[in-house]
This record gives sequence, C-alpha cells and structure tokens, in this order.
Amino acid sequence: MIERGALTSGAKVREACRTGTFFGQTSGLASGFAQANLVVVPAEVAGDFREFCRRNPKPCPLLDVTEPGSPTPIHVAPQADLRTDLPKYRIWKRGELADEVTDIRDLWRDDFVSFLIGCSFTFEAALLQAGVPVRHIEMNVNVPMFRTNQACVPAGVFRGPLVVSMRPMKPADAIRAVEITSHYPDVHGSPVHLGLPEQLGIGDLSRPDYGAAVPIRDDELPVFWACGVTPQAVLQSAGLPLAITHSPGCMFVTDIRDEALKRTAV
Amino acid sequence: MIERGALTSGAKVREACRTGTFFGQTSGLASGFAQANLVVVPAEVAGDFREFCRRNPKPCPLLDVTEPGSPTPIHVAPQADLRTDLPKYRIWKRGELADEVTDIRDLWRDDFVSFLIGCSFTFEAALLQAGVPVRHIEMNVNVPMFRTNQACVPAGVFRGPLVVSMRPMKPADAIRAVEITSHYPDVHGSPVHLGLPEQLGIGDLSRPDYGAAVPIRDDELPVFWACGVTPQAVLQSAGLPLAITHSPGCMFVTDIRDEALKRTAV
Repeated sequence: MIERGALTSGAKVREACRTGTFFGQTSGLASGFAQANLVVVPAEVAGDFREFCRRNPKPCPLLDVTEPGSPTPIHVAPQADLRTDLPKYRIWKRGELADEVTDIRDLWRDDFVSFLIGCSFTFEAALLQAGVPVRHIEMNVNVPMFRTNQACVPAGVFRGPLVVSMRPMKPADAIRAVEITSHYPDVHGSPVHLGLPEQLGIGDLSRPDYGAAVPIRDDELPVFWACGVTPQAVLQSAGLPLAITHSPGCMFVTDIRDEALKRTAV
Repeated sequence: MIERGALTSGAKVREACRTGTFFGQTSGLASGFAQANLVVVPAEVAGDFREFCRRNPKPCPLLDVTEPGSPTPIHVAPQADLRTDLPKYRIWKRGELADEVTDIRDLWRDDFVSFLIGCSFTFEAALLQAGVPVRHIEMNVNVPMFRTNQACVPAGVFRGPLVVSMRPMKPADAIRAVEITSHYPDVHGSPVHLGLPEQLGIGDLSRPDYGAAVPIRDDELPVFWACGVTPQAVLQSAGLPLAITHSPGCMFVTDIRDEALKRTAV
C-alpha cells in the first residue's frame, strides 16, 4: 500500500485507489480537499433519492449528482471515475450488506445514478484550525456514529432513522463548534443536538452503531451532528435489489477545496 | 405612569422618562430599537474602563462613549440626555449601592464619561422572531443573572467576576440560539457556556444573584450569555467614590435599529 503521506490531493488519492495501491480510510488524507459520501442507486428511484436528500439536508447535503450511467462527477472531480476511485465500496442487496469491494466496474449499469454527499471531514479541519480539539482524530479512530429515534422525512421508498456522529467537547468549545460548523451547510452544518443523548434515543454512548467509541470526560458534553451514513441506514429499509455506497470512513476525495464550501453569510 | 403600549420608539421612551411619566422596566418597549446598559465614571478612570471593555468584549460590547461632561450619546441617540432619559439609575458610592433615582442632573459633573453597552434585548427579539422561546419573557419577569467564578480580564482599578444571564432551552433551540446570537457581537454575541453550570461556580440555578428565577425542564439545558450587569459587579470591587449605572432591566433605549447590529459575516 502506498504511503499515506504521499496522498496530498484528491487526484493522488483517486489514482492510488484506481491502481489498487490504496484501499484504507481517508481521514486526514489530501488535507484541504473536501471528501464525500457515495450513494449509487438505479435511475428509477434516483428521483426519490434526490427528493429524500432535499428533504433531509442536514444528513444528506448534495455536492454532486451524476447523469444516469455516467461514473463522472463533473462538478466536484471531472477527471474521476466513481467505479474505481474510492478505497472501498459496500454492496447492498435487498437491504442487506452483501459485500465489500475495492472496484465496482463489473457491477456497473447504464441506469446507475451516483450521489455525492458532503462529509464532516471538511468541518473537522475547520474545528482543528480554530483550536477546537476533536477526540476521535486525537485517538486516530473513526468517529462514533449512532442511529437515533428521529425519523428522516421520507421520500418514495426512502425512509429511516437519522444517523448522527458524536464529538465530546467542553461547553465553550461546543459553542465555538456550533458557530464554525454553521458556516458549512454543505457538510452537515451545525449540530442537530447536544448534551442530552437520551432525547435521541441513545442509551449508551460507549456503544456506537458505527465507528469507534471515544471517552467523554466529566467536563464535556456530547455534541451530535447529522451524518452522511444516514443513507446507509435508509438503504437497509428501502430494500432495493442492488445499491452501492462507500464503506464508512473510506470516502471519495474531490477536487473541491474545503474553503470553497464555507459560507460567510448564513 | 404612561401606558407601555404608547412607548413605540427610543425617542418616546426617553421623553416619557424625561418628563417623569415612565420609570419602569424597558423589556418589550420600543420594539426593534436597541437598548443599552449605562455606566458613568469620572474621566480620570474612563481610559481604564474603556480598556476594561476592550479586554472583555462579550460582557461589555461598547455601543457609544460620550465626551467628558457631555450627556449626549451622539452615535446612538444624538437628541438624548443621559441624565434624564433612563427610567431608573443606580448611584454607587465607594462600591456600595447608595441610591436609586430617576434623574441624575443634580449629581452630574463636568468630568463624567458615559459608556453605553449592548443589551441582550436585541438578540432576544431575534430569537423570538426565529421561533426560539425565551422563558423569562414568557413568564414576564427579569432574566436570571449569576455571578460566576470566571474573572474578567482586569484593567486599572476595574476587576471582578463575569456575570452571566441564563436562558433554559431545548438542545436544538440552544444550537439555533448559538447560531443566531453569533451574528450579534455588539449585544454579547454567542453564549459563553451551556449545560454544565457547576463549571461556572453556579451551584443553584433557582437562586440567581440578579433578576428572577425561572424553571428549567428535564428536556432543557441552561444556556449562559455574558451580561451587561458585569460592570456593576466590577464597580463594587473598584470602590470609586462615585459612579452611576442604569438600574437592572431599566435600560437606555437608543435610536439604533436591532437589525443594524446584525453582522452577516462573523
């Protein structure tokens, strides 16, 4: 596997994925370039999924949507091929996780539409830059994620629970984090909740549904953001014959700069 | 006393104060016009107090400072007279509250400098407009305020604890409140703390140091903003022979519109 330090741009990460020299987690790679969650569905339900994203902009902020059959996200990485350029994919059959692969060319169909959804890695870079510590980055593990008792607004066959990511923070840092992330609506924006996890139906913060557990100290509050893994929970209940996503943490790296996703007036 | 409903502008409130027909709390009056905290000190310490405000912008955001001896805040209300146009004043002698009066013309001196400090009423209007409920307004009582264990940054003779105001909110509303108030840095801006009052040295939220207690429900967090009453706690420790402030809740009403204090890029 190629050294992570060599992967300094979206193009370099994608090339390493395409040539089979990289298939790991993308956190911390290509610093300054925005990363994205991937959801691939057949064209017949693509309209419904687009509407699902529009109705649930906090978990599913759309960065790009491809033409049916095209593996090229022309707005965020016009040279990329979504069938080969991610480190790892998840194959969903009738709502079940059927396989994890590093290339989906043999599964590709002329009617596939790809959705690229903003990823929290962008706002985490902004948090670190502002001096707000991020626990799971310090610990070098995947962010803890939880299915909640909050239902997304359904659209067509797509319905399911909101999934959130959790970052423990001191209260003053939590306030600063709300301020900072509110400027990044295309990568989940400000938190959806903080302080009272039981209101989200989360009983045990040490047992995340995805990712790794991180400790919460006595002087910290758990802060929850809407998460781009939400579509994977939704695909489970939609039960489509075939759908494809990225593998959590193994994102698509775009050519878009994090800074380009910052909105100064919100 | 004049009917509160008739006091629809800064000029009308000030005239009613000046003519002795109004001397009550100003919350909810002159909707849309910014209100201000008043601090009057002799010129010899005015430089120190100005520096104190600069070093502590969250509790002491300056809206206007007068020339020595002038009772006219030319930037926020050029027709006003600060000696007569507030409903009620507090007279501080050697750090002790000596009197509450409705007119300070007989105490006025050629060396008095007046500081007008932004007031949370402006951001409360923005919160209500966004559908975020504000408990003490619903209950029609003064906001609960607490002296904290956090020291302000001192300047000259001015030193003392940060005073905070507290508003209980549901977590999602608290997040929205951070976003909204971050756009109003001239009226205390975003909160300084939320969720863990013991970290501020506040042991009992039902016993505020100023204002009235309000209940906190199980599904709410206490959210704390820096408060314009901080200078009154600071004057107590400065022990000046003579200083004058407004009486808490009985503010100076300016000609400035709340909207003019909104910053879209922060």
